Amino acid sequence: MSTVVADITISLDGFVTGPDAGPDAGLGRGGEELHAWVMSDHEVDRAMLEEASAASGAVVMGRNLFDVIDGPHGWNDEMGYGADVDARPPFFVVTSSRPETVRLAPSHDFTFVLDGPAAAVEQARAVAGDRDVYVMGGGQVVRSCLDAGVVDRLRLHIAPLVLGGGTPLFDAAVPRSLVQQDVRVSPHAVHVTYDVTR
Amino acid sequence: MSTVVADITISLDGFVTGPDAGPDAGLGRGGEELHAWVMSDHEVDRAMLEEASAASGAVVMGRNLFDVIDGPHGWNDEMGYGADVDARPPFFVVTSSRPETVRLAPSHDFTFVLDGPAAAVEQARAVAGDRDVYVMGGGQVVRSCLDAGVVDRLRLHIAPLVLGGGTPLFDAAVPRSLVQQDVRVSPHAVHVTYDVTR
Repeated sequence: MSTVVADITISLDGFVTGPDAGPDAGLGRGGEELHAWVMSDHEVDRAMLEEASAASGAVVMGRNLFDVIDGPHGWNDEMGYGADVDARPPFFVVTSSRPETVRLAPSHDFTFVLDGPAAAVEQARAVAGDRDVYVMGGGQVVRSCLDAGVVDRLRLHIAPLVLGGGTPLFDAAVPRSLVQQDVRVSPHAVHVTYDVTR
Repeated sequence: MSTVVADITISLDGFVTGPDAGPDAGLGRGGEELHAWVMSDHEVDRAMLEEASAASGAVVMGRNLFDVIDGPHGWNDEMGYGADVDARPPFFVVTSSRPETVRLAPSHDFTFVLDGPAAAVEQARAVAGDRDVYVMGGGQVVRSCLDAGVVDRLRLHIAPLVLGGGTPLFDAAVPRSLVQQDVRVSPHAVHVTYDVTR
């Protein structure tokens, strides 16, 4: 059975976007800096991305993230899962309504899931084979999957950044103990993989 | 001139205590688990404590933390800076009024500073020689020292824990970029030292 890995970048104050994130403002004030590690040439950062890509049998994402990825400044042949045509997994997008057009549709396999994050994970599992299901964000979808108990591992890329506001990854009033497993370090982030106790 | 190091343990959601912390409730719900690394026998955790103790020329703390340390369940000859009589630095306690009695006074050198955290850091600097000034907490004092621009390095012990509430380390609406330096890992925490850009 596939392992379900939630994989997201977080600030030291627990945010996955800066303040005022949105369709026109991307990741909010200071939010782009969160992902400096994604753009870096450091071997540890490159390996994190490549291993995740190779391990992904299917990917789950939220509608806000999809809109960014499919938007004019979104994925192309040089970045994201779009870069390697042979390694593109199927994508399951959690949404309340299907988009009218999908820019990346000719080259990517998107399924729109209308009945919530846990259902999207189940659909992803069904096609992932023995590879992993990656929940790549945004924060709301990762949080819902954690709360629904469908996440096996949480991989946090901890950026050296205090955002002072934005989208929190975790719910208030939902405490949680994790088991720290692998830790890898580049100058741009501390990459920590935790086992999630269900 | 001494380096000023703020050194504190933090959850993945950015809290330095759990919910409902206070004089009678210690570190709040789930808060004790934050400091599992302090109690651990792991060589990395031991080294973190021993190096900090050896490097400290003077220590700054807040009144809430002092009340815990000086209280009935506080420091003794086996724990904290109290454990090694030869390595006890002078302590500067930020407070609005002097305590009436100090349990640890016979064996420890406490100075009560009435004019704020930055003043306490200055007084600590004056006696630290070429060793470091450690700001050991709580969250409010570390935050005030960061905001006052008197911190050179921030050492965060990142516990594998989501507290869901408590005392946040960082201010809302005060973003900050840090420069990640040393990272060390035990099963109980990721110990990260950041340079603070003033």
